[in-house]
Amino acid sequence: MAELLMTSDEITTFLKEVFPQSFGEDNVAFSIDAIQPNEALLGLTAGEEHLRPGGTVSGPAMMELADYAMYVLVLAHIGPVELAVTTNFSINFLRKPLPGRLLAKARMLKLGRSLAVGDIFLSSEAEPLKAVAHASVTYSIPPRV
Amino acid sequence: MAELLMTSDEITTFLKEVFPQSFGEDNVAFSIDAIQPNEALLGLTAGEEHLRPGGTVSGPAMMELADYAMYVLVLAHIGPVELAVTTNFSINFLRKPLPGRLLAKARMLKLGRSLAVGDIFLSSEAEPLKAVAHASVTYSIPPRV
Amino acid sequence: MAELLMTSDEITTFLKEVFPQSFGEDNVAFSIDAIQPNEALLGLTAGEEHLRPGGTVSGPAMMELADYAMYVLVLAHIGPVELAVTTNFSINFLRKPLPGRLLAKARMLKLGRSLAVGDIFLSSEAEPLKAVAHASVTYSIPPRV
Amino acid sequence: MAELLMTSDEITTFLKEVFPQSFGEDNVAFSIDAIQPNEALLGLTAGEEHLRPGGTVSGPAMMELADYAMYVLVLAHIGPVELAVTTNFSINFLRKPLPGRLLAKARMLKLGRSLAVGDIFLSSEAEPLKAVAHASVTYSIPPRV
Repeated sequence: MAELLMTSDEITTFLKEVFPQSFGEDNVAFSIDAIQPNEALLGLTAGEEHLRPGGTVSGPAMMELADYAMYVLVLAHIGPVELAVTTNFSINFLRKPLPGRLLAKARMLKLGRSLAVGDIFLSSEAEPLKAVAHASVTYSIPPRV
Repeated sequence: MAELLMTSDEITTFLKEVFPQSFGEDNVAFSIDAIQPNEALLGLTAGEEHLRPGGTVSGPAMMELADYAMYVLVLAHIGPVELAVTTNFSINFLRKPLPGRLLAKARMLKLGRSLAVGDIFLSSEAEPLKAVAHASVTYSIPPRV
Repeated sequence: MAELLMTSDEITTFLKEVFPQSFGEDNVAFSIDAIQPNEALLGLTAGEEHLRPGGTVSGPAMMELADYAMYVLVLAHIGPVELAVTTNFSINFLRKPLPGRLLAKARMLKLGRSLAVGDIFLSSEAEPLKAVAHASVTYSIPPRV
Repeated sequence: MAELLMTSDEITTFLKEVFPQSFGEDNVAFSIDAIQPNEALLGLTAGEEHLRPGGTVSGPAMMELADYAMYVLVLAHIGPVELAVTTNFSINFLRKPLPGRLLAKARMLKLGRSLAVGDIFLSSEAEPLKAVAHASVTYSIPPRV
């Protein structure tokens, strides 16, 4: 069974330090709602810049949420490592999200020596069981001791 | 041979009208550098919010550039249609980009009745022949008369 | 709730008629183990031609199983339609399968007007809860009346 | 500039030894037509088992050809290594191939320390400039000295 090396709060603190542009003081768009072995739940409260006409979240904002959710899940399992980088990202957009907050549920499918693979379901908070997009993401991770 | 239905300027005007949040007055991050049958060349001058420590462009910003490049290519071939939406997006990140402007070269692989498929090479402007990422994108397009 | 239009037996009969090369009399490699709304379970008893040294199933054989599982799932929901074709297929190989029978669990993520999207987990029958590969597949389906 | 470590003939001999089931005496379906730095050209003469009604090559046979083309390209650059394995495979099917021989043109996009990434265009020999499918493939490769 996978063991967690970081809590949500520790990850949030780490991200604000290392990526101040994206996760600095004022950036409250993303939230880490829960982390457990092999699974992470995140949310995105979309700002104006993430919206399409009609108030729904844009495709690129959904991709960013999915990539970020996998990054958080990886950090939780391997610790505060800046050098984890996405090598492959693939997403199917299934239906238009409802206006409002978006959820991402990331699941670890493989945590290997040098690659971590997961998939992420995105859904509208108002309709959490109906996937609006499904992503598969591979991170290259540094060798661990 | 594919025929172009919109010029760069017409597409830029269309995007500012339809997506003012992303392409309004002040947003000069993306530029359409050239369009020809089956090919479009775009650029991204990354702002602070697109950067990673070290000054290189973030993965999500590269994904947005690739998706946007394909959207512009589709618009050029089918005309000003709001309803073209990404259905599948897949990207391999190959190497870290150099600091500075990023280029995207999008190529149409198929322009079908209901799907358009293309691939996009991203490179640093300082090293245009060395791909930093390679994306494959499918758009669902409305039936044309 | 999705309704099933074909049973396992009806699909098997249909496939033998339409694709006699792949599913004719002597071809007992693939089996349809169960079908229910939005889900199908299939198996592959690998023959010599599907094996790698060590007796494990080859990557292309796993891709064929995943694609076939999605096709069966689509047929179950839209009826005996020859013209459903794969438009996008993406797979992550996670770990080497054990020797022996392979299982595929396909799940419908979207059954739209013209596209069906699903994901498929492959596992060894001897270790059914441990995914050896995870695929995402899109089929183009003919408009239904 | 990439240097080649194996010729077409050396690769063919290696594959017959290591994968006798797939590339033994009688299996003449696949051919290596040309190899040069960063590029390989292969062909598939489809047998009955690869065909769909109408005499066109099946999707899984095209996936096998694309995966095999990338494997050959990797071998040519890293030498006779059994342990190179596909980690990610993604393909877009663009149009139905014509009956007859199929070509695969594989191109190396990245040859890194532990990952090799390439893309492959498949076309009908009768219409070599018109892609019938486009694949992106990642191989995990053993560390080299």
